[in-house]
Amino acid sequence: MDYQRFDQIGLPVRTVTEPNPAHVLAFRRFSSDQVVRFNRVQCDEIRKRSGAPIVHNFMGRMTGFDHHALSADLDFVAWDSYPLGFLLDRAGASQAEKERFLRQGHPDFQAFHHDLYRTCGRGRFWVMEQQPGPVNWAPWNPAPMAGMLRLWAWEAFAHGAETVCWFRWRQAPFGQEQMHAGLLLPDRRPAAGLADVTRVARELDELPDAGTARGPCALVFDYPSAHAWEAQPHGIDFDYFALCFDLYCAMRRAGLSIDIIPADGRDLGPYSLVMVPGLLELSPGFRDSLATCAGRIVVGPRAGLRTDELSTPAPMGPDLPDFPLTVTHAESLPPFASLPLAEGGAVGRWLETIETELEAIERTVDGRPVLVGGCRIGYLTGWPDAPALDPGRRPGGPAPAPPRPARHRIVRRAAQAQELPVLDLPSGLRVRDTRTHRFWLNYAPEPLACNGRTVEPGGVLWEPLGEPLERGSGAGGNARGA
Amino acid sequence: MDYQRFDQIGLPVRTVTEPNPAHVLAFRRFSSDQVVRFNRVQCDEIRKRSGAPIVHNFMGRMTGFDHHALSADLDFVAWDSYPLGFLLDRAGASQAEKERFLRQGHPDFQAFHHDLYRTCGRGRFWVMEQQPGPVNWAPWNPAPMAGMLRLWAWEAFAHGAETVCWFRWRQAPFGQEQMHAGLLLPDRRPAAGLADVTRVARELDELPDAGTARGPCALVFDYPSAHAWEAQPHGIDFDYFALCFDLYCAMRRAGLSIDIIPADGRDLGPYSLVMVPGLLELSPGFRDSLATCAGRIVVGPRAGLRTDELSTPAPMGPDLPDFPLTVTHAESLPPFASLPLAEGGAVGRWLETIETELEAIERTVDGRPVLVGGCRIGYLTGWPDAPALDPGRRPGGPAPAPPRPARHRIVRRAAQAQELPVLDLPSGLRVRDTRTHRFWLNYAPEPLACNGRTVEPGGVLWEPLGEPLERGSGAGGNARGA
Amino acid sequence: MDYQRFDQIGLPVRTVTEPNPAHVLAFRRFSSDQVVRFNRVQCDEIRKRSGAPIVHNFMGRMTGFDHHALSADLDFVAWDSYPLGFLLDRAGASQAEKERFLRQGHPDFQAFHHDLYRTCGRGRFWVMEQQPGPVNWAPWNPAPMAGMLRLWAWEAFAHGAETVCWFRWRQAPFGQEQMHAGLLLPDRRPAAGLADVTRVARELDELPDAGTARGPCALVFDYPSAHAWEAQPHGIDFDYFALCFDLYCAMRRAGLSIDIIPADGRDLGPYSLVMVPGLLELSPGFRDSLATCAGRIVVGPRAGLRTDELSTPAPMGPDLPDFPLTVTHAESLPPFASLPLAEGGAVGRWLETIETELEAIERTVDGRPVLVGGCRIGYLTGWPDAPALDPGRRPGGPAPAPPRPARHRIVRRAAQAQELPVLDLPSGLRVRDTRTHRFWLNYAPEPLACNGRTVEPGGVLWEPLGEPLERGSGAGGNARGA
Repeated sequence: MDYQRFDQIGLPVRTVTEPNPAHVLAFRRFSSDQVVRFNRVQCDEIRKRSGAPIVHNFMGRMTGFDHHALSADLDFVAWDSYPLGFLLDRAGASQAEKERFLRQGHPDFQAFHHDLYRTCGRGRFWVMEQQPGPVNWAPWNPAPMAGMLRLWAWEAFAHGAETVCWFRWRQAPFGQEQMHAGLLLPDRRPAAGLADVTRVARELDELPDAGTARGPCALVFDYPSAHAWEAQPHGIDFDYFALCFDLYCAMRRAGLSIDIIPADGRDLGPYSLVMVPGLLELSPGFRDSLATCAGRIVVGPRAGLRTDELSTPAPMGPDLPDFPLTVTHAESLPPFASLPLAEGGAVGRWLETIETELEAIERTVDGRPVLVGGCRIGYLTGWPDAPALDPGRRPGGPAPAPPRPARHRIVRRAAQAQELPVLDLPSGLRVRDTRTHRFWLNYAPEPLACNGRTVEPGGVLWEPLGEPLERGSGAGGNARGA
Repeated sequence: MDYQRFDQIGLPVRTVTEPNPAHVLAFRRFSSDQVVRFNRVQCDEIRKRSGAPIVHNFMGRMTGFDHHALSADLDFVAWDSYPLGFLLDRAGASQAEKERFLRQGHPDFQAFHHDLYRTCGRGRFWVMEQQPGPVNWAPWNPAPMAGMLRLWAWEAFAHGAETVCWFRWRQAPFGQEQMHAGLLLPDRRPAAGLADVTRVARELDELPDAGTARGPCALVFDYPSAHAWEAQPHGIDFDYFALCFDLYCAMRRAGLSIDIIPADGRDLGPYSLVMVPGLLELSPGFRDSLATCAGRIVVGPRAGLRTDELSTPAPMGPDLPDFPLTVTHAESLPPFASLPLAEGGAVGRWLETIETELEAIERTVDGRPVLVGGCRIGYLTGWPDAPALDPGRRPGGPAPAPPRPARHRIVRRAAQAQELPVLDLPSGLRVRDTRTHRFWLNYAPEPLACNGRTVEPGGVLWEPLGEPLERGSGAGGNARGA
Repeated sequence: MDYQRFDQIGLPVRTVTEPNPAHVLAFRRFSSDQVVRFNRVQCDEIRKRSGAPIVHNFMGRMTGFDHHALSADLDFVAWDSYPLGFLLDRAGASQAEKERFLRQGHPDFQAFHHDLYRTCGRGRFWVMEQQPGPVNWAPWNPAPMAGMLRLWAWEAFAHGAETVCWFRWRQAPFGQEQMHAGLLLPDRRPAAGLADVTRVARELDELPDAGTARGPCALVFDYPSAHAWEAQPHGIDFDYFALCFDLYCAMRRAGLSIDIIPADGRDLGPYSLVMVPGLLELSPGFRDSLATCAGRIVVGPRAGLRTDELSTPAPMGPDLPDFPLTVTHAESLPPFASLPLAEGGAVGRWLETIETELEAIERTVDGRPVLVGGCRIGYLTGWPDAPALDPGRRPGGPAPAPPRPARHRIVRRAAQAQELPVLDLPSGLRVRDTRTHRFWLNYAPEPLACNGRTVEPGGVLWEPLGEPLERGSGAGGNARGA
């Protein structure tokens, strides 16, 4: 494909064989820019006529345009949170997770988007549509477990949401969405969820402002990388969102609070831990930010293996300061060919072969380095599975996983090197810290206990920060029982 | 979607998001009416020129048009019965059923259509094409087990068929259907099935007319409901035909003979048991019929939850006389989330939450009512699985189901409340009563016994009605051994 | 479908129901002829201007045109061998084979195409593109196991390849194939595979010419038959290539060297064993060749059941000399309905019912003949599975298959009747004889031993022919250790 003039360039379709991935990436970038520009034209027109703030609602797991770029023209952002529909149609949940969390939603999927869109909104976001009962559009549409509407609302507030709106007020008695629940039934009587919502409203009146949250940890989520690996996945199940979400879930299972940030020149000083998976290209600005970050940085896998035009740099590798490492080639692996790690867990889907003098912190059983580096920067050569990332408990059948020393696994080791306290959370229990409070949220269908607190199914507890974590009771201070 | 004039209304495709289900339903109704009208035009032209009866052949599991409406213009109806092809491509058989009945066909699929199309033909129907050997169009095309052509013919006659035609006489030596068996081979020698067919012809000469059958039980099958739930299934595996067929099979496994009827104003007086699953709307005429029926009536699930234009009535529910029950909302459930019932079995796919003072006859283990009502009318809130419907034995692996007291399950309890005798049929054995005879048919690959009769694989026995069921021998009277 | 003139005949698409399979077959034949003619036009133009040999590269498992017909216009042929990609995307490998041979490729898939294309090239073929590392286009793209590049090259040479070219020399740093490995990395340093390739080049200098191979066994592979059964498969998983490949693999597992030949009038005298599966039509020339072949001939299943215009001959059957056998009908069978054989293994997918006085050599447990015939010709009525074909060991989980007497199974019995020595090869070990040498190749990930030789994983041994097979060491003569 040679071009002499711009007007010779068509869409990346109907090529003789697969289109050039650089062409696909350019088209994705162009498409994203068009969405951003169209939004800007509308915002400009509105601002000529009104001083009201402008907001738009995003969705879950949508990477079609760069949400950071579009958000720059909004006053703040919002999104539509449908935990039960998303569990079945897009969270990438395992069968065990679908069974365990059918009426609760994935314990980390909403949190991920709260953390992502809060950054898009420069600290300000709403939930514009919150699921109020069974909906109409997922493959199956069960009703939420008792208490979940309250839990979803408090999860959003704990992540800094300013407002949670319920969609919809009354269930429509006609049309496409007549099986989409509301807070009122079609005949205007209260639906099952209304009591939960009323309780949250009452609790909000009582709880002092918990402040906007900023996590001690950061995960980089970069829309151009999503576009690049969609254009050139190499393995049919390589998915950038799934890679980032896997790392995010591992941090959540360790009890960490997280900011999801773009790969720009922002100050990374406040973060004790920064994860940078699958980044297409490390821009000079972002490289400078990493250089001045005092926390622990874990880069990779598949970071810095392409230029921003999706060609191969020579040599391949993340090009980090004082970090001599070259990637010679990469493999994609089918689900049945994951490689076990020496200390437990495995890497799969993606594995790079590297040349480096850096120390190997994690290796496969047959000796291939999986995590290399020193005390400040680490590089992942492959996609670790959940047991390799953290010792948190996950749903997965009757047999519990054998105990593993927490200090030996990837997320936990990185956190503890920074003296970030980690938790040993049971499957479905999560925490989120605001500026003033710690919230405990139980997504499981049974009561769960941790550090002396017991949280009912669908329950939420909160307590002021600063009190000792091992205090032994969730009932003191401002904490509220579920 | 607002319309000012009829000519603004397009087809329910290429809408911005999913089309309005009421629009889809209207289109389906229109399409069905067009088929009916086209058939009527042809019939009118033929009748101007000929006094011969007019018949058309239907197929298995086809709901594209209202067969009752079309049949009104025919003198009688016919259908094409391909038991082996249908088992693999449309009966919805379980894997265990496909393995057990590969060369016999589903034990209830032909019977269902005989019972349905007999009503369409106002008591008169033919089998226009009966499978004579391996065919050419199913995913796989095995040969019938020895005796099955005879069994299929007698199943049809026992259900009131006036004629069974075999398609085809000679296997074609060319073209699309050259792998579709006939009664003769391509070289005009007899094919394997011809002996069975000759035997049936001889037996027909000997057996006195067994009369047209009318069952003591009825199942309502309503084409507009099929169209409605296809337009708005709510769960991806909700299928109206499958729901009706599940109930039909449960009645067959209990040894009952069934009429399949439309939801019109016909006299329901003769029926001791009427099942009304998934009915879109209870018309005034049908409601009157139910009111004057002296038998036991089981309505639901998903009955009366919509108007005939697919909007939501207020309140939702079946609106039956002296039957105070309101449905507040409904859930669709994935296959892995069925809810076990207190007395065994489970409900899945669909479950309604109701408000009622009526007694709960069946409940889930956690107390949700699944069958409510009194001695005359019951309402099902969910889709029961086979063990919940009846204690009949089903194929499913080496381990037999534990024995359950027959009086405790849904179909059997309803039948026994009406003093309808039920049978404990082994997997694959079926009975069908005509006006004068009881027919025993064995679809299983091994001999099966019930009430002292033993029927060979693929065998058929008949005996005059009125003789005691526990007489202990299938060889007396006019009975014929397999 | 009646035609009065040729210009009334359209493409076999958009017919009211499925197109006439004879029409589809005619279209496939026409398409193949067009490809052959287009190639001829190009060859003619080149030959007017150059005396250089003309070659073209074929692919794996491509049946779109008749490769024998096209090759007649080339000086020799070549093909592109991608063992790891083919294992995952087209070899039809079982899950156990995919797991065991993920980084080695299917042990027989390359050999099959070497043997097929050598015949197309009238004894002369190249590998034009040989996989040098992970590629970019398969569902997943793992790296080869150490040694595999050398093994693949020697497998090709042992089958008579004159040249093995590696695609590509340097991995491209841009475009669609930038994740397709080369012998050099994008930055021009040596890639992992280069050492293997250098070693093969050195070994080629040392090894005397091993001669062009001609196997003692033949398998007929006929492109028109592939087209015919694609037009009229009867069962959704009936695939002509898969049937031929199953028989080929069974012969390879027994240690036999094979020619893959068309069904033409060539001299079959040299062959001790000829397998003829699924042949659409036995032309008079091929029938004559079979008549003068002194070896053992195994025909079927599905051989001679159609004319070359895809109509049904009367009677159906292979019409072999002194071989009275008529096929009355055929069944296609789903994977769960294979019929076990009396001596072990099973037949599935396809089974014919026959009339014959010939002796049954193999029967199903319930007595249906599966292999019939005398000492010279046998006819298979069904598609045997691997345990029925040969006692060679296959991957398939931890439990080894119970030992079976080798003399009792189909391939081995046929070979031994001709005093062709057979081997009891472990799973993944293969041999190939040239005119002068025997090559041992180990596709398994662990060392394997046979007849006293031990071959390392990915290793190749060779030894001069004529030395006793049971000599007990692979290190003597010209043999090279892995």
